[in-house]
Amino acid sequence: MPHRLLVIHGPNLNLLGRREPQVYGHTTLADIDARLQTLAHTQGVALSTFQSNHEGALVDRIQQAADEGVGFIIINPAAYTHTSVAMVDALSGVAIPFVEVHLSNVHGRESFRQHSYFSAKARAVLAGFGARGYEFALQYAIEQLAAA
Amino acid sequence: MPHRLLVIHGPNLNLLGRREPQVYGHTTLADIDARLQTLAHTQGVALSTFQSNHEGALVDRIQQAADEGVGFIIINPAAYTHTSVAMVDALSGVAIPFVEVHLSNVHGRESFRQHSYFSAKARAVLAGFGARGYEFALQYAIEQLAAA
Amino acid sequence: MPHRLLVIHGPNLNLLGRREPQVYGHTTLADIDARLQTLAHTQGVALSTFQSNHEGALVDRIQQAADEGVGFIIINPAAYTHTSVAMVDALSGVAIPFVEVHLSNVHGRESFRQHSYFSAKARAVLAGFGARGYEFALQYAIEQLAAA
Amino acid sequence: MPHRLLVIHGPNLNLLGRREPQVYGHTTLADIDARLQTLAHTQGVALSTFQSNHEGALVDRIQQAADEGVGFIIINPAAYTHTSVAMVDALSGVAIPFVEVHLSNVHGRESFRQHSYFSAKARAVLAGFGARGYEFALQYAIEQLAAA
Amino acid sequence: MPHRLLVIHGPNLNLLGRREPQVYGHTTLADIDARLQTLAHTQGVALSTFQSNHEGALVDRIQQAADEGVGFIIINPAAYTHTSVAMVDALSGVAIPFVEVHLSNVHGRESFRQHSYFSAKARAVLAGFGARGYEFALQYAIEQLAAA
Amino acid sequence: MPHRLLVIHGPNLNLLGRREPQVYGHTTLADIDARLQTLAHTQGVALSTFQSNHEGALVDRIQQAADEGVGFIIINPAAYTHTSVAMVDALSGVAIPFVEVHLSNVHGRESFRQHSYFSAKARAVLAGFGARGYEFALQYAIEQLAAA
Amino acid sequence: MPHRLLVIHGPNLNLLGRREPQVYGHTTLADIDARLQTLAHTQGVALSTFQSNHEGALVDRIQQAADEGVGFIIINPAAYTHTSVAMVDALSGVAIPFVEVHLSNVHGRESFRQHSYFSAKARAVLAGFGARGYEFALQYAIEQLAAA
Amino acid sequence: MPHRLLVIHGPNLNLLGRREPQVYGHTTLADIDARLQTLAHTQGVALSTFQSNHEGALVDRIQQAADEGVGFIIINPAAYTHTSVAMVDALSGVAIPFVEVHLSNVHGRESFRQHSYFSAKARAVLAGFGARGYEFALQYAIEQLAAA
Amino acid sequence: MPHRLLVIHGPNLNLLGRREPQVYGHTTLADIDARLQTLAHTQGVALSTFQSNHEGALVDRIQQAADEGVGFIIINPAAYTHTSVAMVDALSGVAIPFVEVHLSNVHGRESFRQHSYFSAKARAVLAGFGARGYEFALQYAIEQLAAA
Amino acid sequence: MPHRLLVIHGPNLNLLGRREPQVYGHTTLADIDARLQTLAHTQGVALSTFQSNHEGALVDRIQQAADEGVGFIIINPAAYTHTSVAMVDALSGVAIPFVEVHLSNVHGRESFRQHSYFSAKARAVLAGFGARGYEFALQYAIEQLAAA
Amino acid sequence: MPHRLLVIHGPNLNLLGRREPQVYGHTTLADIDARLQTLAHTQGVALSTFQSNHEGALVDRIQQAADEGVGFIIINPAAYTHTSVAMVDALSGVAIPFVEVHLSNVHGRESFRQHSYFSAKARAVLAGFGARGYEFALQYAIEQLAAA
Amino acid sequence: MPHRLLVIHGPNLNLLGRREPQVYGHTTLADIDARLQTLAHTQGVALSTFQSNHEGALVDRIQQAADEGVGFIIINPAAYTHTSVAMVDALSGVAIPFVEVHLSNVHGRESFRQHSYFSAKARAVLAGFGARGYEFALQYAIEQLAAA
Repeated sequence: MPHRLLVIHGPNLNLLGRREPQVYGHTTLADIDARLQTLAHTQGVALSTFQSNHEGALVDRIQQAADEGVGFIIINPAAYTHTSVAMVDALSGVAIPFVEVHLSNVHGRESFRQHSYFSAKARAVLAGFGARGYEFALQYAIEQLAAA
Repeated sequence: MPHRLLVIHGPNLNLLGRREPQVYGHTTLADIDARLQTLAHTQGVALSTFQSNHEGALVDRIQQAADEGVGFIIINPAAYTHTSVAMVDALSGVAIPFVEVHLSNVHGRESFRQHSYFSAKARAVLAGFGARGYEFALQYAIEQLAAA
Repeated sequence: MPHRLLVIHGPNLNLLGRREPQVYGHTTLADIDARLQTLAHTQGVALSTFQSNHEGALVDRIQQAADEGVGFIIINPAAYTHTSVAMVDALSGVAIPFVEVHLSNVHGRESFRQHSYFSAKARAVLAGFGARGYEFALQYAIEQLAAA
Repeated sequence: MPHRLLVIHGPNLNLLGRREPQVYGHTTLADIDARLQTLAHTQGVALSTFQSNHEGALVDRIQQAADEGVGFIIINPAAYTHTSVAMVDALSGVAIPFVEVHLSNVHGRESFRQHSYFSAKARAVLAGFGARGYEFALQYAIEQLAAA
Repeated sequence: MPHRLLVIHGPNLNLLGRREPQVYGHTTLADIDARLQTLAHTQGVALSTFQSNHEGALVDRIQQAADEGVGFIIINPAAYTHTSVAMVDALSGVAIPFVEVHLSNVHGRESFRQHSYFSAKARAVLAGFGARGYEFALQYAIEQLAAA
Repeated sequence: MPHRLLVIHGPNLNLLGRREPQVYGHTTLADIDARLQTLAHTQGVALSTFQSNHEGALVDRIQQAADEGVGFIIINPAAYTHTSVAMVDALSGVAIPFVEVHLSNVHGRESFRQHSYFSAKARAVLAGFGARGYEFALQYAIEQLAAA
Repeated sequence: MPHRLLVIHGPNLNLLGRREPQVYGHTTLADIDARLQTLAHTQGVALSTFQSNHEGALVDRIQQAADEGVGFIIINPAAYTHTSVAMVDALSGVAIPFVEVHLSNVHGRESFRQHSYFSAKARAVLAGFGARGYEFALQYAIEQLAAA
Repeated sequence: MPHRLLVIHGPNLNLLGRREPQVYGHTTLADIDARLQTLAHTQGVALSTFQSNHEGALVDRIQQAADEGVGFIIINPAAYTHTSVAMVDALSGVAIPFVEVHLSNVHGRESFRQHSYFSAKARAVLAGFGARGYEFALQYAIEQLAAA
Repeated sequence: MPHRLLVIHGPNLNLLGRREPQVYGHTTLADIDARLQTLAHTQGVALSTFQSNHEGALVDRIQQAADEGVGFIIINPAAYTHTSVAMVDALSGVAIPFVEVHLSNVHGRESFRQHSYFSAKARAVLAGFGARGYEFALQYAIEQLAAA
Repeated sequence: MPHRLLVIHGPNLNLLGRREPQVYGHTTLADIDARLQTLAHTQGVALSTFQSNHEGALVDRIQQAADEGVGFIIINPAAYTHTSVAMVDALSGVAIPFVEVHLSNVHGRESFRQHSYFSAKARAVLAGFGARGYEFALQYAIEQLAAA
Repeated sequence: MPHRLLVIHGPNLNLLGRREPQVYGHTTLADIDARLQTLAHTQGVALSTFQSNHEGALVDRIQQAADEGVGFIIINPAAYTHTSVAMVDALSGVAIPFVEVHLSNVHGRESFRQHSYFSAKARAVLAGFGARGYEFALQYAIEQLAAA
Repeated sequence: MPHRLLVIHGPNLNLLGRREPQVYGHTTLADIDARLQTLAHTQGVALSTFQSNHEGALVDRIQQAADEGVGFIIINPAAYTHTSVAMVDALSGVAIPFVEVHLSNVHGRESFRQHSYFSAKARAVLAGFGARGYEFALQYAIEQLAAA
């Protein structure tokens, strides 16, 4: 049975590429998910993706991953990076290793964005690589599962 | 086509006027919305109002405003004033100007209520004018849209 | 008419006893609720229990308690202990006395878990008694209602 | 006898509209005062206005208001917002209710401008509405006096 | 041989019920100790109680507990909660598990009372249950000893 | 030639006894000054008193004291206690010893009132003795001058 | 029956005048107590004095004062000013008004000496008047008792 | 028409050289102004100087500079360095470039003297060069005006 | 001419794989550099690598990169992440875009390791991917240069 | 007459070697004192040792040392390191030089153990040398006395 | 023998004028040094200049100055301003007076650039005068040496 | 083969005894090293000593110690105590136990000198024993190696 992976996108990421394309580019979340599916398919792993603006729905989805046998999670918590202890507790509860991804380099923004509840529990963290960051994270996750 | 405006009420504001009227008065959220509709009608603008206790639902509603062509938002984030980065990110994402409204003067309350994630991004902020505050904010928003 | 009480369980508590039983034991949330129902039945009070991962749903449930005539709430806010002003505002809004319960002793964990938005408004607080803590809290609540 | 109100403008507001009009607009303090006088006249109340760069003169003026029977003060403390305990003590000493007004939204500026000695004692606070803010505040003050 | 337990009361608790009964009630420390002795007797365990205003005497008493074979300590450190590292070191030195008890909910009082040197080392903590809190703690301690 | 002393009263102290006598009592600043003059007369020293709401005027008065040969200053800086470095620099500049007086116990008020720029440079500080505090300070100053 | 007063001296004050007289002067604690007794005798009140280096003994002495009918306490907590919550709790417990006295002006010393647990609960506070400070405090206390 | 410059001296600088000459030297403010006038005369620029202990008067003087066509300000805010937002706002309002001067090196003094409201808005800052610092600043200002 | 890239390794990274291989693995810095050279060769870019324990030597090397026409830097500042403003200034001085790489997830270590002087200036940051992180960063840099 | 030295052991050090020897070793406080007596005897100095769990008793013992002509104190304040201003004041009061000793390296423990009230007043400080630390300190003290 | 002076330039100052001249101007460090040599020559003093990116080399150079009989140091520590205790210790060790120079006004930049380890030990500090600042500092140093 | 030990002296310690002997004494670093060599020789261990002002050179020397088979390091990091994470990482990297030595008692100096990056990783720490401190540390290290 192939390894299963899950990509979780936090609040407002559904707006990606749909608003102010001159600023944020034309890449939509659907584009990103499609590229990740292609990469997953090529390497023979099963990939699910999920986006929600609801913290509770994101907690539910993380819990469900344990029942599905997901082996690795790639998560971009977006605004919940800085406020959701509940999502971190869910990740700890299901004990699935995860990588934290941010599209932009959050270190150059408001000071409250410097703090992440997720980073201390993550296997690895990356920020500022744009959509490419998801692919690096997925590549790494696949290799980790293969090596386990 | 008339200008469109949206008024958003955050968590627990649905309790207004229904509980402890001797303390908070008998004005309900429906009363406030009705007065705002009258004011909007008088000035020839289209107004929608929305209340929810769910942070995700409030984020969804803000995003939807962009699709509806809303030109100005009046928002009372209530308890989410102090905790919701996601709602602020949604407001930035849709790039609709907004005024932040609080019924009571939050500056005389607990210290954690002194901090608002919304204020730095707002056009204007008011607190302590009771239900009248919504009307001032709506009046200002209508004038801003007319002048734009 | 018997006194009515409500027990509220916050996010991720539905995982209790289902994951890593060698660490957290085999007691599930259903087990806890059953024991509390027995205790309530013995003492002639009506008890409801509720769990959700959604902050908004928890706020809704607290508001509904007022309509039901609930006289005391036992609440384990879990991760929302540290982030939810909205739930505390709901408890204040309905003006029902409550006891705050934590399964483990949160004082030995990460520093951000030392702060609770709920404690200052609670009648009493307990932590570290495991599932027994709910029973002590319920016993105390019943006695308080009887003495009122 | 009509209700008496007082509008106080803090330091440097006398520069309004006279310097860098391309940035701050052409509205002068005299223009603002004139519009407020018109509004006061229309509603049958007596209005005085006062501007000074001297903290002591502003304290004196606040004390004098008590002798004049002023019922409400609208005050824009400008730079003294962040440094004058003496003006706040004067307002407390005469026990006249006041509204705090700021032309621009101070929440988007230097961090030392986030703190106001006045807000905790004010009935209401508004910022970012430009000259319109004074009118909202005056309107509110008149209604409050009428309702008292 | 029965299990041995020790209840320790910190400074000023000897005043309980003797001063300002209209505020603090008429229950004295002797009343509390008597109820605890009854509970201990019923369940077949040996209980000692001790009160002192002297930090050194409290440290001595904790050390002596180790020589007596005490298996669990219930301690209300009162004012020493916030200042005594020596008592916590004594508890660590004798390695006897303990529960920390406070009569009132300390979370609603001065900020320096929010910090306890004891909580991080305690098995469990409770506050706000009045004299009932000692009984819950003793009940829990007896069960823990029985289960060990 | 008799010793010369100066008593300085800071902003808003001219309101003393004139407003809200049911709260602050009927003693006016003139009453206090009269009692101090009597005490000075009895002990054969020359006393001047001064009150102003203007920080600059208070600085001027302190500088003038040096030219007059004043040997000791009793000062109640009132609101300028917490904000005026200029007055402290004037006191250091003229190098006249001073006692800092506060009518009420400032330690029980807002946290910003806990800090005084004057205390570290004062010979002595007292707070909470009401008008009696000025007399104690004057008595002490007279004795210090006599002993020098 | 005459009014009863108590003067309490904290740790190390027994060294006064006995060590390094060239620095601290030759006045001993016995000298101070004698002068206070003379003042008390003259005004017809009964005075007790007490010194201890033991925090617990000072707590005991404060509690005993309530049984003796003491109407006012003058206390120099010395080093315990900065660390003893227990003594403050004792003073609150017996509900006897007190004045806090310090021989030297503590505001010019180490920063940890700026904070006093006692000041917020004291009627009045004075520092820097040397032994004279005790006399001012006693005089004030006698007048307060006479006026009550 | 020659370039116009303004030198502003803050509070207490009028004491310079008049008090404690053994400590601060015999150079008076008049001496400094005379030397600056000589330097200005030599280089063909018009120079005004101004000293006041009144914050409001200093604000007025800065505003007046704009009407006079002053091209550069040299300012020693003295004690107002640390407390006057109003003077900084005046400097920003008139938009005249300025250099901040301090006679002594403020970095070796009390910690509250480390912070200046002026520095972030100044073209340049110097401290510790004594009266020479004014000359360096004036020299620099003249060169800047010449090069503009 | 091919694009030129530079990889910089900070202090102690020369120990990699040579000490405690059971903990840190057997991969040496030479191994990492070899893999990066292979990747660079495959994609037709020129790569230099450099390691030093000397902050000054690292600053020199960054400056030299500008003379060599390096278009992108991948840097693991190691311990200098938290202390070297000089290296960040060098990177800003040469104005070459860079990615910050850390082998382990620094967010789970000592608190002083949470702060990086480099992150705010970096294009992107990654941590916790082990040696794989360098390859992701190099891959990204090559793509950025190709797309420029 | 030989030099006199005093070794003071703070709270809980009487437990040394008596509890959990597998962790803390079998060396008791009596063993340490005996070794120190041997060292003192060899070098011809008179040594006293003292242990107490009572802060007041430790203060008394320090004061008594002055009457005994003790020339140097070696002190391990244990838990009172972090809380006793009274002991530090006693050491300052008797003006006897002292060395501060800790058995374990306190720098690797809880953050509140990083702060010592004693260190700033000590001649020298050592931590982490186990019982050997007392001997180094005593050796140093003897040499200092001999050299004086 | 002429007075000897030393000018020290910290890290990255060798880039001056060589990179981004449109931003930082065309003045190189060699230009600055040449102008300073001319000024020194004119006034008959001997001047050495030194630049390094290596903290250790800068410490060495400061120490060597003592052997050369240097009487005054002008130092621009650049990035080491904020991190090098070693350079400050070297300056204290050789006990040569120094002036701290910064080309730009550091007060308008990142907050970590507000702190200098050097300023408290410097005779004088200046910032924002560009290359002119070095000349003012050198002029001042020459005058100080002449006056000594 | 004898045990090997290394003594490392940080920046500016080469100045010891050469400058200001009236303050720091005449003992040079060479004197200290000679005494340590004698002690090492007597006890049959091999000792190397090293001093540098260059952080990188100190890191190199620590790394080299591992290749030489050094069993214990005595290190006085001097100014790098407060700033060098790189040296601490080197010590951790080579995993050689070390003792941290300071000549003077750093606890009585500037606040930034209270923090050491080394102490938490050291076996033991001492400060204030002058050159004697190195000998105590060496003696302890020799005993530790002998006992291992």
